[in-house]
Amino acid sequence: MNNRNSGCRVAVFGATGLVGRTMLQILEERNFPATDIVPLASPRSLGQTVSFRGKEYPLQVPSAEAFEGVDIALFSAGGSASLEWAPVAATAGAVVIDNSSAFRMAEGVPLVVPEVNPEAIFKEDGTPEMIIANPNCSTIQMVVVLKPLQDRYGLKRVVVSTYQSVTGKGKAGRDALESELAGEEQEEFTHFHQIAFNAVPQIDSFTENGYTKEEMKMVNETHKILGDSTLAVSPTTVRIPVYGGHGESLNVELGKDFEIEEVRELLRHSPGIVLQDDPSARLYPMPLTSYEKDDVFVGRIRPDYWQPRTLNMWVVADNLRKGAATNAVQIAEVVLAGKA
Amino acid sequence: MNNRNSGCRVAVFGATGLVGRTMLQILEERNFPATDIVPLASPRSLGQTVSFRGKEYPLQVPSAEAFEGVDIALFSAGGSASLEWAPVAATAGAVVIDNSSAFRMAEGVPLVVPEVNPEAIFKEDGTPEMIIANPNCSTIQMVVVLKPLQDRYGLKRVVVSTYQSVTGKGKAGRDALESELAGEEQEEFTHFHQIAFNAVPQIDSFTENGYTKEEMKMVNETHKILGDSTLAVSPTTVRIPVYGGHGESLNVELGKDFEIEEVRELLRHSPGIVLQDDPSARLYPMPLTSYEKDDVFVGRIRPDYWQPRTLNMWVVADNLRKGAATNAVQIAEVVLAGKA
Repeated sequence: MNNRNSGCRVAVFGATGLVGRTMLQILEERNFPATDIVPLASPRSLGQTVSFRGKEYPLQVPSAEAFEGVDIALFSAGGSASLEWAPVAATAGAVVIDNSSAFRMAEGVPLVVPEVNPEAIFKEDGTPEMIIANPNCSTIQMVVVLKPLQDRYGLKRVVVSTYQSVTGKGKAGRDALESELAGEEQEEFTHFHQIAFNAVPQIDSFTENGYTKEEMKMVNETHKILGDSTLAVSPTTVRIPVYGGHGESLNVELGKDFEIEEVRELLRHSPGIVLQDDPSARLYPMPLTSYEKDDVFVGRIRPDYWQPRTLNMWVVADNLRKGAATNAVQIAEVVLAGKA
Repeated sequence: MNNRNSGCRVAVFGATGLVGRTMLQILEERNFPATDIVPLASPRSLGQTVSFRGKEYPLQVPSAEAFEGVDIALFSAGGSASLEWAPVAATAGAVVIDNSSAFRMAEGVPLVVPEVNPEAIFKEDGTPEMIIANPNCSTIQMVVVLKPLQDRYGLKRVVVSTYQSVTGKGKAGRDALESELAGEEQEEFTHFHQIAFNAVPQIDSFTENGYTKEEMKMVNETHKILGDSTLAVSPTTVRIPVYGGHGESLNVELGKDFEIEEVRELLRHSPGIVLQDDPSARLYPMPLTSYEKDDVFVGRIRPDYWQPRTLNMWVVADNLRKGAATNAVQIAEVVLAGKA
């Protein structure tokens, strides 16, 4: 990495997208010590500017020169852009934090959720890896909650059904719902089918085994992040007409017996988690209340009375924030701190 | 039951509600041999009429006299109305098919899904029970799919997460979503919280054990209908902003090994089920496509590769139809046929 101690230059690639814009916003909110930013996008955005701390920055297209002097490059411009430009940025000396799926499962590329495995960011010599992958949104919020359970009780099995926000498909996904609700004719459906007043049990395309890519990400990324490829993860991912964040219904089999109140206290005191679990006050996580928040919200924690050592819970997080931009900026913070 | 062979007189109690109206519609659609109908409702509906086969029927309030000569009484006016009037109707000679939860778990009252346990309708002497309970919507669509699996493979465990339509709360539930989407101020939220652009992990009130009544219905009613109180059923029920029907993500552990194609064929040929399972054509059940249909739609059938003898699937049905009115009318048809 370039000049770590004298403030830092941050590139945001995909700066006009929903995640890119949120990254810029979160860099501001968290007072990230960026002395300068370099917003990058595809050529069709040339001529536009983005605003950061009251200053306008012209959009640039990526090039070897654009990454010169950049310390940290946050990528959210899609998988093929990442494959093309992440090596260029890394060669220029930038630590790339990549929100696409391009490098997530690559050997030697850490896949990081700072509350879970921040140590993976650094090589043995203490320097950061030059390409660090940001996990998929639906994986991030799940592993934040699973990690404390893994440490305390061990994990055997997770059955997860998701309730995913239209913003998982970025601006196009959000616009599609708005347009459908406005009764506009759709040339094609961004969410495969009408999403207004619907639930679509397909996110991303199908793989050979009958699971979608989104579902297999939840399996494979969870294995990598939690460092346990024996963990049974059985996912069903569903798009629903909400903006605020992804919901997940989790049935989790632990390695040993637990007291439910102990689980609640454990999660309440775990990093990145806000416990919202008071049924009598109708308090539980919801997409509406997680919107624009950086935390992972968990509630409806209760024993599965029908299966030993198993519990149910309900987890919600803003997929654009903790599920994408916030997690990436948090990784950048750890990189900058120089230690996990 | 009164005069079974010369056509039949059908009372519909709760005739102004969403389920009651749907019952009348389904009686028409299925050419139910009703020679006369008796629409009943609370006193505030007096003076209104309901239309059936082109004829207008004035609404009446329930009374012992109103049930005289009635052969079949379809009840959907809430639990306390059922507790008060079902015994009166039965005494007057009507077979009551009750859509409320009042009698569902009562000893001696059959809880019936005609594709699953039609034989429960009849006493040993071959006459029908005078009060027959119609199960909860989320239970009905699940047991229709579980029954063939139980018969062929045995059932060990079901983990279910629901995606439930606002019409589960009747007209008020539907109106609430419309009103919220129109941006109208809400005095209180019919679905506990705003449901537009939200997912609310609470349906009905909470019981002592941390599960909602809706969730415990899925456990207890499933045990009763499938005749197996050892079956592990672990439910999470969630309201989402759809009108068309309830979705359910099911993870099912069977008693023995299976071939997934065999499961698919089994379900394809089972009563009341329509298989919609062609991912390559983006064909799977959805609330929008199940709307106003009488079947239970199943798709996304795939092995749980991480747990032996286990599979995942996705089930949708119109909760006002198969989940309520259609199932009740189907029970009435079996009553009328005089045999399961």
